[in-house]
Amino acid sequence: MSTHAHRRPGLSPGTLIVDPNATATTVRVLRYSADTLSESEIHKVSEIPPIEPGTTLWIEVVGLKNLDLLRDLGERFDLHPLVVEDVVNVNQRPKAESYGVSEHFIVARMPIVDPRRSRWTTEQVSLVVKSGLVVLFQEKPSPAFDSIKERLREGRVRLRSSGVDYLTYAILDSIVDAFYPVLLDLSTELEATEDQLLDDADNTELKTLHNIRRNLIRLRRAALPLREALGSLLRDPEVDGFFRPETLVFLRDAHDHATRTLEQIDNDRELAASLADLYLSMVSNRTNDVMKVLTMIATVFIPLSFLVGLYGMNFDTNRAGNMPELDLPYAYPLLLALMVSIGIGFVVFFKRKGWL
Amino acid sequence: MSTHAHRRPGLSPGTLIVDPNATATTVRVLRYSADTLSESEIHKVSEIPPIEPGTTLWIEVVGLKNLDLLRDLGERFDLHPLVVEDVVNVNQRPKAESYGVSEHFIVARMPIVDPRRSRWTTEQVSLVVKSGLVVLFQEKPSPAFDSIKERLREGRVRLRSSGVDYLTYAILDSIVDAFYPVLLDLSTELEATEDQLLDDADNTELKTLHNIRRNLIRLRRAALPLREALGSLLRDPEVDGFFRPETLVFLRDAHDHATRTLEQIDNDRELAASLADLYLSMVSNRTNDVMKVLTMIATVFIPLSFLVGLYGMNFDTNRAGNMPELDLPYAYPLLLALMVSIGIGFVVFFKRKGWL
Amino acid sequence: MSTHAHRRPGLSPGTLIVDPNATATTVRVLRYSADTLSESEIHKVSEIPPIEPGTTLWIEVVGLKNLDLLRDLGERFDLHPLVVEDVVNVNQRPKAESYGVSEHFIVARMPIVDPRRSRWTTEQVSLVVKSGLVVLFQEKPSPAFDSIKERLREGRVRLRSSGVDYLTYAILDSIVDAFYPVLLDLSTELEATEDQLLDDADNTELKTLHNIRRNLIRLRRAALPLREALGSLLRDPEVDGFFRPETLVFLRDAHDHATRTLEQIDNDRELAASLADLYLSMVSNRTNDVMKVLTMIATVFIPLSFLVGLYGMNFDTNRAGNMPELDLPYAYPLLLALMVSIGIGFVVFFKRKGWL
Amino acid sequence: MSTHAHRRPGLSPGTLIVDPNATATTVRVLRYSADTLSESEIHKVSEIPPIEPGTTLWIEVVGLKNLDLLRDLGERFDLHPLVVEDVVNVNQRPKAESYGVSEHFIVARMPIVDPRRSRWTTEQVSLVVKSGLVVLFQEKPSPAFDSIKERLREGRVRLRSSGVDYLTYAILDSIVDAFYPVLLDLSTELEATEDQLLDDADNTELKTLHNIRRNLIRLRRAALPLREALGSLLRDPEVDGFFRPETLVFLRDAHDHATRTLEQIDNDRELAASLADLYLSMVSNRTNDVMKVLTMIATVFIPLSFLVGLYGMNFDTNRAGNMPELDLPYAYPLLLALMVSIGIGFVVFFKRKGWL
Amino acid sequence: MSTHAHRRPGLSPGTLIVDPNATATTVRVLRYSADTLSESEIHKVSEIPPIEPGTTLWIEVVGLKNLDLLRDLGERFDLHPLVVEDVVNVNQRPKAESYGVSEHFIVARMPIVDPRRSRWTTEQVSLVVKSGLVVLFQEKPSPAFDSIKERLREGRVRLRSSGVDYLTYAILDSIVDAFYPVLLDLSTELEATEDQLLDDADNTELKTLHNIRRNLIRLRRAALPLREALGSLLRDPEVDGFFRPETLVFLRDAHDHATRTLEQIDNDRELAASLADLYLSMVSNRTNDVMKVLTMIATVFIPLSFLVGLYGMNFDTNRAGNMPELDLPYAYPLLLALMVSIGIGFVVFFKRKGWL
Repeated sequence: MSTHAHRRPGLSPGTLIVDPNATATTVRVLRYSADTLSESEIHKVSEIPPIEPGTTLWIEVVGLKNLDLLRDLGERFDLHPLVVEDVVNVNQRPKAESYGVSEHFIVARMPIVDPRRSRWTTEQVSLVVKSGLVVLFQEKPSPAFDSIKERLREGRVRLRSSGVDYLTYAILDSIVDAFYPVLLDLSTELEATEDQLLDDADNTELKTLHNIRRNLIRLRRAALPLREALGSLLRDPEVDGFFRPETLVFLRDAHDHATRTLEQIDNDRELAASLADLYLSMVSNRTNDVMKVLTMIATVFIPLSFLVGLYGMNFDTNRAGNMPELDLPYAYPLLLALMVSIGIGFVVFFKRKGWL
Repeated sequence: MSTHAHRRPGLSPGTLIVDPNATATTVRVLRYSADTLSESEIHKVSEIPPIEPGTTLWIEVVGLKNLDLLRDLGERFDLHPLVVEDVVNVNQRPKAESYGVSEHFIVARMPIVDPRRSRWTTEQVSLVVKSGLVVLFQEKPSPAFDSIKERLREGRVRLRSSGVDYLTYAILDSIVDAFYPVLLDLSTELEATEDQLLDDADNTELKTLHNIRRNLIRLRRAALPLREALGSLLRDPEVDGFFRPETLVFLRDAHDHATRTLEQIDNDRELAASLADLYLSMVSNRTNDVMKVLTMIATVFIPLSFLVGLYGMNFDTNRAGNMPELDLPYAYPLLLALMVSIGIGFVVFFKRKGWL
Repeated sequence: MSTHAHRRPGLSPGTLIVDPNATATTVRVLRYSADTLSESEIHKVSEIPPIEPGTTLWIEVVGLKNLDLLRDLGERFDLHPLVVEDVVNVNQRPKAESYGVSEHFIVARMPIVDPRRSRWTTEQVSLVVKSGLVVLFQEKPSPAFDSIKERLREGRVRLRSSGVDYLTYAILDSIVDAFYPVLLDLSTELEATEDQLLDDADNTELKTLHNIRRNLIRLRRAALPLREALGSLLRDPEVDGFFRPETLVFLRDAHDHATRTLEQIDNDRELAASLADLYLSMVSNRTNDVMKVLTMIATVFIPLSFLVGLYGMNFDTNRAGNMPELDLPYAYPLLLALMVSIGIGFVVFFKRKGWL
Repeated sequence: MSTHAHRRPGLSPGTLIVDPNATATTVRVLRYSADTLSESEIHKVSEIPPIEPGTTLWIEVVGLKNLDLLRDLGERFDLHPLVVEDVVNVNQRPKAESYGVSEHFIVARMPIVDPRRSRWTTEQVSLVVKSGLVVLFQEKPSPAFDSIKERLREGRVRLRSSGVDYLTYAILDSIVDAFYPVLLDLSTELEATEDQLLDDADNTELKTLHNIRRNLIRLRRAALPLREALGSLLRDPEVDGFFRPETLVFLRDAHDHATRTLEQIDNDRELAASLADLYLSMVSNRTNDVMKVLTMIATVFIPLSFLVGLYGMNFDTNRAGNMPELDLPYAYPLLLALMVSIGIGFVVFFKRKGWL
Repeated sequence: MSTHAHRRPGLSPGTLIVDPNATATTVRVLRYSADTLSESEIHKVSEIPPIEPGTTLWIEVVGLKNLDLLRDLGERFDLHPLVVEDVVNVNQRPKAESYGVSEHFIVARMPIVDPRRSRWTTEQVSLVVKSGLVVLFQEKPSPAFDSIKERLREGRVRLRSSGVDYLTYAILDSIVDAFYPVLLDLSTELEATEDQLLDDADNTELKTLHNIRRNLIRLRRAALPLREALGSLLRDPEVDGFFRPETLVFLRDAHDHATRTLEQIDNDRELAASLADLYLSMVSNRTNDVMKVLTMIATVFIPLSFLVGLYGMNFDTNRAGNMPELDLPYAYPLLLALMVSIGIGFVVFFKRKGWL
C-alpha cells in the first residue's frame, strides 16, 4: 500500500528524501494588488520578486522533484524546517499548523479524478501562508486552481483587493470542492448497484459494492482531517487575527461544505452496509425458494419411485408368499390410484406448511 | 443524485447560478403590528414598504427563478452576499449563521409530502432575520406557513405583538412540525412491514424494509443539522439578545421537538436493523426445516429404492451364485419386513437427532 | 403509531387540544407541614387553599379531560402557557425546564404495567414546582405515588418537614423506581428465551427475542431523557438553590438509579444481539449437519442405484456385445462385492473430509 | 435476575431492608499508627475505640445481616443515612460520593471467583472514609484484603505511616486487582475456544463463545463505573485535599490499571464478535462444500439412472415403434459409451464452474 | 494470555518482582553537549558520571533482570518508587505521568518485528526524563534507537545542542515510527487476502482474515494510549515548560504521525469487516447457484425416472386393467414425446423463475 511511504525511522526531522518518481518542479509566481497583476514562470528562487506591502505574492510550486529549489525557497522565505519536510514527504495527515503568529501551514489531500474517470487518487496539497505571501505546493499539475487564477486575471474586485487571507480561503474552498465529483461518481455508482442488487445480482455486483465501500473509506480518510483542519483555522486562538471577520464568514461556509461532504459519505456508507445486509437476506430467501421446489418434487416422487421399483422386482411369483399383488386383477389401476393419493397427500401437507 | 448540485468548483462565492427548473418567483409582503396588518403581493422590490419601528415586515419569497428580484432584495435590505448565494444554491447544509449582531441567517431543509402521499422530498427554506424584518425564501409554494398567516390575520395577540423574534420562532416551529407526517408514515409502514415479515414474507417486504431504512437515513440527514441549528440559536453568544427570554422558552420547546423527532428516527432505524436480523434468522430456520423434510424422505427411501432396484436386476438366476434369494419361498415378505425395519430404524435415528 | 400525536403544525403554542379518549379529571389536594396534614378532593379551582409559608401544597391532577379546570389551575397559580400545553399534549420528550427562578417544570414518561402483566405502556407525568406548591399531572390513575401519600399520612418526619424540594425528589424517585418491574420482566423473559434458544428453538422464540428488543428500545426511549432531566436538575445553574444540599444528595441517588437502569437496558440489548447472532450460527450449523447426512446417504446410494438399474435393463443378451456380464457365473456376488467396495470407499472419503 | 433487587418503589430513603439470606455480621477493628497496631474482633459498637489524631481506625464489617449493629455504627460515627441504606441494599451502581468535605463514600462491585473456579460472582464492597476512620463493608468474607492486613502487621513503613488516604488507595487497588484473575480466565477460555472453532466445532463451542461474551458484558458492567468512580476521586473538586499529592500518584496508577482492564475487556469482546462472524462464514463455506459434492454426484448419476431406467421398461418390443434400440447389436456398449460421455461432460462442466 | 502478568493482588506498590525470563541488564551511557560526546558501557551505577549543566546524560538500560542495578539507579537519580515498579512490571498501560515539575515518566509499547518477519510482538519502553537526564528502559535489545545514536555521533547540530526535551522527542518519534513496518505488513497481507477472497477462497483465507483482525486489534491497543500519552505531553499543564516551543512543533508532528497510524488501523479494521461481510454473501450466493443446478437436474429427471420406473413394473399385462398402455403400438415414442414435453415444461418454468 503506497500510502505508508514515510521517512526512514529515526531519521532527523527536516531530512528531505525525494521520491524518484516525483514530477519535475515548475514554479509560477502571481503578484497582484487591487490594481496590478503580474504573472511569470521562474526557474530560480532569486527571480521571485520581494514581498511588498499592499501586494499579494502567490507562488505555485507544481512537482516536488527539484529538492534544491524547494530548499532555496524555504531559506528565501524563512520557512520552518518541518514545513519543507512535510511538503516533500507527501503522506502527511491533513492539518493546519501555526509556527508562531506570522506563519501558517496547511496540508490537505485533494482527490484527483483520472481523466479516463475510472479511477481517482489523492494528492497532497500544502499551503504556507505568511504576511503578503502564499506558497502552494502540489504533487502534480491539476486544473483545480485554474478558476482562481482566471478570476484574478479578470480583475474580480473582491479577490484582487482582499489579500492573503481571502486567497487562502479561495484555495481551501477549491480543495473542498474537489471532493464533489468523486463523491458524486460513487453515489451514482452506489445507486446503480442498488438497482441491480434489488433486481437480481451475482457476485460481480457484490464486488462492485465492496469496491464502493473501499472508496468511501478512502475518501472519508481524506475529508475528515480536512474538516478538522478547517475547524482549527476557525477556532484556534493562534490563528486568531489572521483571517479578517469578512473572510471568516466565507471560511465557515467552506467548513460547512466539508461537513456536508462528510455527512454524504457517512450516509452512503450506511446505505451500502444496509444494502449488503439486504442482499444476504435476499439470497437466503432465494435459496429457501429453490430448496422448497427441490424438496417438494423429491418428496413426492421419491416414495412413488420406490413403489414402482418395488413392483419391478423379479421375484418368482410362483413361490409361496411372493408378490401375489402382481397377479391381482386391476392391480395396476389400484396402484395408480394409491400413487395419486400419495401425491395429493403431500400437496395437502405442503399447503399446511405454507410452502405452496 | 440530485443532492450533489453545487456551484462549479472555484467559482467566486456570491456567484448566483439559477436552476433552470426553478419555480417562478412570487413575493408576498405582510406588515403588522399589535393593531395593524397589511398584506400584498408585490412584483418589484421598490414596492416593499420601509421597515418602521414597532411594525414587523415579513417578506415571503416563493420560487427562486427571478434572480434579478432576489439580487435587488439583497441590495435593498443590505444582505450579506453569501446569504443570497446560499438561498439560490439550494443544497446548503441546514445551519444558523450570524453576520454581525444585526443579521441572522437560518437555512433548513423541510420535508414536503407529495399530495399523492407515495413520495416525499425536501426543499430548502431560508430565513433572513434583521431588526423589524423577516425574509423567508422557499423553493416551491407549500402550505406549511399558512396557519401562521391565519393567526396573524385573526389578530392573535401574542403573535401580533411579539415582533421579529417570535415570528422567527413560529416559522422554525412550523418547519420542525413538518417532519412529523413523514416520520409518521415511515413508522406506520415499518410496523406494517414488521407484521408481514413476522408472518411470512418474500423479497418484496425486504425491499420495502430497505426502502424505509433509506428514507430514515434521508430524513435524519435533514433533521440532524436542523436540531444543531436550533441548538446554536439557543446557545451561540453571537445570537445573544436577539431572542427575548419569553421567546427563548418557546424556541427551547421547538428544540425539544426536533430532538424527539431525531430519537424517533434513530429508534426506527434500530428497529429496522433488528428486523432485518430477525428475518435472516427466520429464513435460515425455514431452510433448515425444508432441508430436514427432504433429508428424511430421501434418507429413508433412497436405500429402499436401492434394494428394490437390486432385485429388479436381470441376472440369470440359473447361473452359479446368481441371486438365489429371488427363488426363496417368502422372499418377498421377508424383504418387505427388512425394508420396514430400515424405515423404523431411520425414524428412531431422526428422533434421536431431534428432527422429529 | 400513537406516539406521534402532536398538535397540528403551525398552531399557536399554548393552544390546548384535548384527546377525546382522555380520562375525566379528578383533583386531590394535600396540604401539610411538619405538624398538620389535610387532604381533600376538590372540583373547582377556587376550592384549593392558598399557598402559605411553612406549608406545602400538593395538588394531584389525574386525567386530562377537563380542559377548563386545567386552564383555571394555570391561571390561579400563574403557570407559564407552555406548561399547560405540554401537560395536555401528552407526547412531550421528558425534560426539566425552568421558567424564571421561581417555577420549575418536569416532564417524565412513567412505565405502567398492565395488571394482567402481559403488556406495559408509558404515560406522561408532569410536575410543576413553585415555592410551596407541587402540581402533579397524570394521564390515568396509578398507584405509583400511593406510598408517598402513606408516608405523609403516617407523619414521617423527614418527608413532612422537608418541604417542596424533598417532595419533588420523592415523586421523581417513584418514577425512576417504576422502571424496575418492567425491566425485571424483560430481563427474566430474555433469560428464558436464551435457555430455549440454546436448547432448540423455532421461529416462535425468534419472534419473542425480537419483541424483547423492541420493548428494550421503547423502555430506553423513556429512561434516557429522564436521566438527562435528572442530570440537568443536578447541574443546571438556573435550578441552583431550589434543591437544598441535603436533598441534592438524595436526588443524586435517584440519578444513579436511573443510570443503573439504563446500563441494565443496554446490557440486555447487547445480550439480545449476541443471542440473535448465536442463533443464526447454530441454525447454520444444524443445516450443515442435516446436509451432511443427506449428502452421505445420497452419495453412497445414488451410484449404487445406478448400477442396479444398469443390470435391470432389458437388452437382449443374445445380440452381439449386449450385456455379456449378466451371463457370467458368480456375476451377482461379484457385483455385490463391487457395491460394498464403493460404499467402503465413500466412507473412507467422508472420514477424510471430517464428516463422520 | 437477582441483580434487580431494589427497595420497594416509594419507600422512604434510609429504610433498611435486610436480605434474609445475608451472611451474619462480624466486625473486625484494626487501629494503627506508625509505631502501634492493635487488632480485635468486636460484637458491640461501643467496643470500638475512639478516633484519635495520629492513628488510623480501620473497621472491617463482613456480612450485612445484623441491621442493628449497622445502624449503631452509622449513629456512632455520624454517617449519612443514605450511606447505611446503600451499604445494605447491595445492588448499588459503583460510585464515589462526598457528603460534605469530611465524609467520602465509595461503592464498588468486586468479582469473587468461586473456589471451584467454574463460576464467579460480584459482591458489593462499600467504603466510608472520614478523618482518621475507614469503614469497609463486604457482603461475604473474602481474602481480597488479607495482604493489606499482612503488610500492616509486618509494619511496612509507608502503609503504617501514611494514614487514611493511603489505606483507601490500598483497598481500592485490591478491588481493581480482583478483576485480573476473572478476566484472565475468560481470555484463556476465549483463546481455547478460538482454537477449537478454527479447527472444527459444533454448537457446544458456540455456546461457550456466547457464554464468554455474557461474562465479558457482566465484568464490564462492574469495571466501567469503578473506573468512573476512581476518575471522580482524582478530579472531583469536592474530594480535593483528601488525597495528599504523594497518594494521588498511586491512585492514578490504580486508575490506569482499571483502564487497562476495561481495554482488555473491550478487546476480548471485539475478538469474540469477530470470531462469531468467522464461524458463520466457515460453516457457510462447509455447507457450500457439502452441497457441491451432493450436487456433483446427483447431477452425474440422476440422468444416467434415468437412462438405465428407460431401457428397463417392459414395452413390447414387437409392437410398431416400440424400443427398437433394445434389439440393435452392440446397443449396450453404445449406451455405456453414451453414459461415459455424459459423465465426462459433467466433469468438464464442473471444472468450468470451478467446483473441482 | 501472557499480557495479563501483573503483580500479585494486594502487594505493596513499589514491590519489584523480576520476570525470571527477563534479559540480562546492560547499561550504556551517552553524555553529550554541542561540542563533546562520550559513550561507555557501565556495570555499576557508581560509574555513571554526574549530571552537569550544559550536557545531556542519556542512560540506556536494556534488559530488566538485574533488579539491584535498577534499584541503585532509582536511588542514585532519586526516581519515584512507582517509576521503578512500572519499569519492571512490563505490562503497564502506555502513559505520560509527571511526578512534580522536575520528573516526567513516559511508558510506551513498541512493536518489534521478528527478524523472520512472520510474527511481531510488543515490548515496553519506559522513559524517565529529568533536568539534564534521560533514562531509557527496554526489555530486549532492539535497533530502534540506533539511528539517534548515529546522529549524535555524526554531530548533528540540532540534536547535539537541543538538550533533554529534543532527545525525548527523538526517542518518542522513533517509537511512533516503529508501528509503520508492522502496519505495512498487515495492510499488504489484507490486500492480498482481499484479492484471494474475491477470486475464490476456502477457510484458509478466512482464518488469515481473522488473524489480520486480531493483529489490528493488538496494534491498536498499543497505539491508542501512545497517542493519548503524546497528547497529554502536548496539553498537560504539569508538563508545561518542559518542552521548549521549538521542540513542541516537532512533538506535535509525532502526535500527527500517531494519529495517522491509528486512522490507518481503523480503516483496515473497517475494510476487513466489510470483506468478511462480502465473503459471507459470496458464499451464500455460490451455495444458491449450486442448489439451483441440483434442483434443476433433480426436478427434471426425478419425475422422468418415476415414469420409466412405472413402465418397468412387472404387472401381468394379461390381467384385467393391468398396464394396457404397454401393448399399444407406438407407446414408446409417445412416452418419449411426453417426457420431452415434461422436460421442456420445466425449462420454461425455470426461465420464468429466473434460474436460467
